[in-house]
Amino acid sequence: MHSNSQDGCAALAQESRRLIRQGGHTGPTAGLAPGCVQANLMILPDSLAGEFLLFCQRNPKPCPLLAVTEPGQYTVPALGRDIDIRKDVPKYRVWRHGELVAEPADLDAVWRDDLVTFVIGCSFSFEEALLADGIDVRHISMGVNVPMYRSSIPTAGTRSLHGPLVVSMRPMKAKDAIRAIQITSRFPSVHGAPVHLGDPSLIGIRDIHQPDYGDPVAVHADEIPVFWACGVTPQAVIHTVKPEFSITHAPGHMLITDVGNTSLASF
Amino acid sequence: MHSNSQDGCAALAQESRRLIRQGGHTGPTAGLAPGCVQANLMILPDSLAGEFLLFCQRNPKPCPLLAVTEPGQYTVPALGRDIDIRKDVPKYRVWRHGELVAEPADLDAVWRDDLVTFVIGCSFSFEEALLADGIDVRHISMGVNVPMYRSSIPTAGTRSLHGPLVVSMRPMKAKDAIRAIQITSRFPSVHGAPVHLGDPSLIGIRDIHQPDYGDPVAVHADEIPVFWACGVTPQAVIHTVKPEFSITHAPGHMLITDVGNTSLASF
Repeated sequence: MHSNSQDGCAALAQESRRLIRQGGHTGPTAGLAPGCVQANLMILPDSLAGEFLLFCQRNPKPCPLLAVTEPGQYTVPALGRDIDIRKDVPKYRVWRHGELVAEPADLDAVWRDDLVTFVIGCSFSFEEALLADGIDVRHISMGVNVPMYRSSIPTAGTRSLHGPLVVSMRPMKAKDAIRAIQITSRFPSVHGAPVHLGDPSLIGIRDIHQPDYGDPVAVHADEIPVFWACGVTPQAVIHTVKPEFSITHAPGHMLITDVGNTSLASF
Repeated sequence: MHSNSQDGCAALAQESRRLIRQGGHTGPTAGLAPGCVQANLMILPDSLAGEFLLFCQRNPKPCPLLAVTEPGQYTVPALGRDIDIRKDVPKYRVWRHGELVAEPADLDAVWRDDLVTFVIGCSFSFEEALLADGIDVRHISMGVNVPMYRSSIPTAGTRSLHGPLVVSMRPMKAKDAIRAIQITSRFPSVHGAPVHLGDPSLIGIRDIHQPDYGDPVAVHADEIPVFWACGVTPQAVIHTVKPEFSITHAPGHMLITDVGNTSLASF
């Protein structure tokens, strides 16, 4: 499925990656290569990769895997002909024993032959489909980050990886919420359908105006908060075990792929 | 699509219709011929049929047409090989100038050569799909009629036909509401996706415990009311113009067709 790149998207994505690789774009990637799938990165030593893969298999809504590399492999041909995982993201985060130690623009100084890269779907893809359908996506219209919350919904744990599901929230009128459920159900590889809607306290959220990550957004009286599984979940879970070494993308600084967003639709 | 009867359903439906035609079953049809599509009937003089057809075309969610006959025609071969509209429903309602004048078991005494029959999809089909997925359908588990409400949502009117959308309500936990939206979206010919969820006052419903038709059902603290367009809408609308003559099925006494419920699924 993911090699089914769309005409037009591959060229756009390659141009954006070239710009990033050459240092010509250092900020967040929202708005770059419209129509192309952007993805989260989780890079782990091979010793932890097997268990993280199992965690993703058991929690496909927060951890929809688009690709997993072999140890040391920094190409991902299924997602883009010339992708170089070490250079194609504008800003990385390097973690040691669970502490953030650097935010480099490439991984030349830290790359290791035992690193396995997990490329994980991101809500940008379904948000593009929502916007295309005329639905107001609040954090986008407000120009802020999506609000995210640690919920009381448990993930399906592995031997050492476990923790709460992190959810993102988009407030909508009921009519738009119904339509958004239809639209996002078509995109299982980028979090899919919501996990909850309505009363936030039913999933352990005390104050909708105080997100644990991202920014608060306005929720109007005629709106319902709608909650999706969030790609921050795997980061939050992995960091509870304080791995000796790991790398992620910096928030909002995503890997741009040759895959068209619409090609992820399941029907 | 509707001639694509499923093996097993045709035989079951034909047996049920034979029983009804012979007077062996005179009550509601819920539970008869499981898996087979049951349908609402609206029978009108040809003089009003054109405008009613236009109303249905403009309001497909409350008025999903499965078939429309020629004037005087009492067979519907697309929905069942031997259907006789005059005999195959256990109880009819005959209306003159908007007043209920009789509830006969067949139409032999009142049939006219100018009558056009509209066969309209019914929520039984999607409720079967919800139950099959393990979702509690409250009025079914309580053994009562579905609660229905005149909403403040207008229908798309024609020259003389207009009025509010009537909605049916099923309370659900958020998780089940999300799943129910996915399931019912697959059934556009039996009302399809909900039209509203959450706050009833946003669609003009003052008291969820006082439905305008049917029976009240319990709505628990962790549940959201979910509202679907209802097949009572066309009856309510047509009766505002007090047609000289019309016939409907009696509530719950439906036409059983040879079409399998699952064959209505759009994907």
